[in-house]
Parts: sequence; structure tokens; C-alpha cells
Amino acid sequence: MSQDSDSTVLERLYTLILSRKGGDPEKSHTAKLFARGRPRMAQKVGEEAVEAIIAAMKGDPAELVGESADLLYHLLVLWADAGVAPADVFAELARREGTSGVDEKKTRPPA
Amino acid sequence: MSQDSDSTVLERLYTLILSRKGGDPEKSHTAKLFARGRPRMAQKVGEEAVEAIIAAMKGDPAELVGESADLLYHLLVLWADAGVAPADVFAELARREGTSGVDEKKTRPPA
Amino acid sequence: MSQDSDSTVLERLYTLILSRKGGDPEKSHTAKLFARGRPRMAQKVGEEAVEAIIAAMKGDPAELVGESADLLYHLLVLWADAGVAPADVFAELARREGTSGVDEKKTRPPA
Amino acid sequence: MSQDSDSTVLERLYTLILSRKGGDPEKSHTAKLFARGRPRMAQKVGEEAVEAIIAAMKGDPAELVGESADLLYHLLVLWADAGVAPADVFAELARREGTSGVDEKKTRPPA
Repeated sequence: MSQDSDSTVLERLYTLILSRKGGDPEKSHTAKLFARGRPRMAQKVGEEAVEAIIAAMKGDPAELVGESADLLYHLLVLWADAGVAPADVFAELARREGTSGVDEKKTRPPA
Repeated sequence: MSQDSDSTVLERLYTLILSRKGGDPEKSHTAKLFARGRPRMAQKVGEEAVEAIIAAMKGDPAELVGESADLLYHLLVLWADAGVAPADVFAELARREGTSGVDEKKTRPPA
Repeated sequence: MSQDSDSTVLERLYTLILSRKGGDPEKSHTAKLFARGRPRMAQKVGEEAVEAIIAAMKGDPAELVGESADLLYHLLVLWADAGVAPADVFAELARREGTSGVDEKKTRPPA
Repeated sequence: MSQDSDSTVLERLYTLILSRKGGDPEKSHTAKLFARGRPRMAQKVGEEAVEAIIAAMKGDPAELVGESADLLYHLLVLWADAGVAPADVFAELARREGTSGVDEKKTRPPA
């Protein structure tokens, strides 16, 4: 798979997710998540992060791939609900990179 | 920012992270994470996911952007340690998309 | 409810949980958790902690009570699987208390 | 340690925590947590749950004891902030026990 097709997956998925907003919860898993509201979306991000952690601790790369895909999907849903675009997050990562901030936590505001 | 530059940020960051493996923990934050081992990397993914959740529940999009950037960075570190490439995860997302699986949880193996 | 009956709930529940170890997964929810193994138990602790966080952020005390009960139950299951008794954890809390450590993080070893 | 002294540790700690509410953040770690607000308290519960999970997956019982003590302490702080008493949670656990609900998830409302 080329780097180009890799990279557009997240953008394409985000666009698809946005298009499900307000859709029929009976017909779309994503529309159902929007209908359930923000707390449920945030909960899914937390659950999938936990599953990714467990997969990593078990040392199961295939499971880590699957759980990471779940995590990214639910993170995109949460972003869509909160008005955050993938480009906003990529720009933040690029900004840190530009100031060597990707590798140096000190340049970031305290967590 | 164009979609092309957005998308290569994760790939570039992953390559940078890989290059820090085995580096001097005194000079690089990423090298320090590798030196501390898998449990510590997994822990960071969990912590940043929690912070992203809290930001979303507070309704603070700017904070969600920052915490999501932290989460993606630490997820990439965990992938790098576990031998998972971004392309593996993007391929999994694309595979689900191809079978309409992105939107339909039923086609995935049970979590 | 008296303080005495409050306090023995966790001990009683822990004893009940231990008694389910090796039991029939078809007949007992707890036996099923043991049969599924440590990673699944750890995952449940993570999921219930996420749900307690969400309840607290929503400002829903009744939901926080329910999710906290779930969290304590799954924590007891994890302890039972790992050979940790409630008395071990209470002794650690009492030890910190004795050295004023409950209120002063500085006396603890770095996390 | 007798069962009686075990059990009162959580109640005593909760009373201590409540007494720190509104105290000087410079002098007390607990007062500092209250001053930082609910999101920070919730975040700590999430972080300590993640650390307990990691300790359990590493198979380190002593670390699990320490992280569980941290988790219980931060959970008590969150309860104190949200107006939840330990007795409320113990009563919920006892209620499930009474209806055999401790062991049977089916009797609880859907998560």
C-alpha cells in the first residue's frame, strides 16, 4: 500500500463519519453513536484504548492492529462530535515537529 | 494544510520515532520512553486517552486537539515497540471500509 | 447502615469471588470472568474506571455509585486472580496514613 | 490485621479527605486535588486504573497493591467531590448481593 493511500484513509473515514451525523441509528453504527451522545463516544475511546493497552501487554501485534483501528475510529467519531478535524490534530503534531516539539515534551504547555 | 501534508505527518513521525529506538535517553524524550519499556509506553497511551476523554467531556476542543496529538504520538511509540506500522492499521481500517465494515461492527470479529 | 456492615461488604464479596474460581462459567458471571483469564479481567477494570470517570464528569452521583460498585467488583476479581487480598491494600493505605503518607505523595516511591 | 481494622481504613480515609476540602493546597496533597477541580480528580482515577491494569498484566502483585491503594485513594477523592459516600457504594454492592446481583450481571440495568 502506498503512503498516499494510507494517509487518506483517516480523512476519508472522518468524512464518512461526518456524513452519518443525524442519520438513522437503525441503519448505521456511526449514526447510533451520535444519537447516544458525547459521554458514550468518550467512553468508547476509553474502552478501545484499554483494549489496545491489553493487546500490547499480551504481546499480540495482530490484536494491537485491530484494537488500534477501533481506537482511531472512535477517536474520529469523538472529534466529529466536538468539531475537531483530523487536520487540526495533524497541524498540532506538525507544529511540535517544526519546533522539535515532537521529541521534546518541554516545549509543550504542562499537561 | 493540504490533505497530502496532513497525511504524511503520522508516517514521518513514526519514522522519527523508530530512529530514536536505542538512542540516548538523556537527549531524546522518545529514546527515554523506549528505554523504560513496553509497560510504561502502554501506560502513556492509557493516560493520554483519559486526558482526551476529559477534554471532550469538558467541551474544550483546543484541549482535545492537544491531548489527541499526545495520544497519537504515544500510540505510534507503542506501535513502534510492538512491530506494528501505521500502514498495518490504515490497511485494517481500509479493509473494513471495503466491506462496509467501517460503519458496520457486525462484520468484525467479536471484541 | 453501620460502619461495621459497610466495611465487611468488600471482604464478603472477595470471599464469594474466590469461591467462584474454577466454578461453572455457565452458572456464574464471576466464574466466567476467571475462565476468560487475566487480560479480560484487567480490561473490565479499565472499562469500569472509564465509566466512573464519565459519570463523574456528567455530574451524575447515582450513576457514579453504580459504576463505582462495578469498578470495585472487577478490582476484587483482578486481586483474586493475582493473589492480592483486600487486607494487603488496606494495610498499604494504613501504612501511608501512619506515616502521614495518605496525604503526602512525597513519602511514596515514584510511580 | 483484623478484619475490623481493615474495613475502617476506607471510612477513616474518606473522613480525612473530606476534612481537607477547602484546605491549603500548599500544605495538603488532597487539598490541592480539590483546588484543581473535578476533571483533574477524574483524570487521576483513570491514570491509577491504567497503572493497576499494567501491574496486573506484568504479574507484579506488590505493584498491584500499591497502584490499587492509589486508585482507591483517588476514587475516594472523586466520591468526596461528587457527594458520594463510601456507604452509598457499599450499600449498592450489598443490594446486588442480596438479590444475588453481585454474581449475576443480568439483574443490573444495562451499562
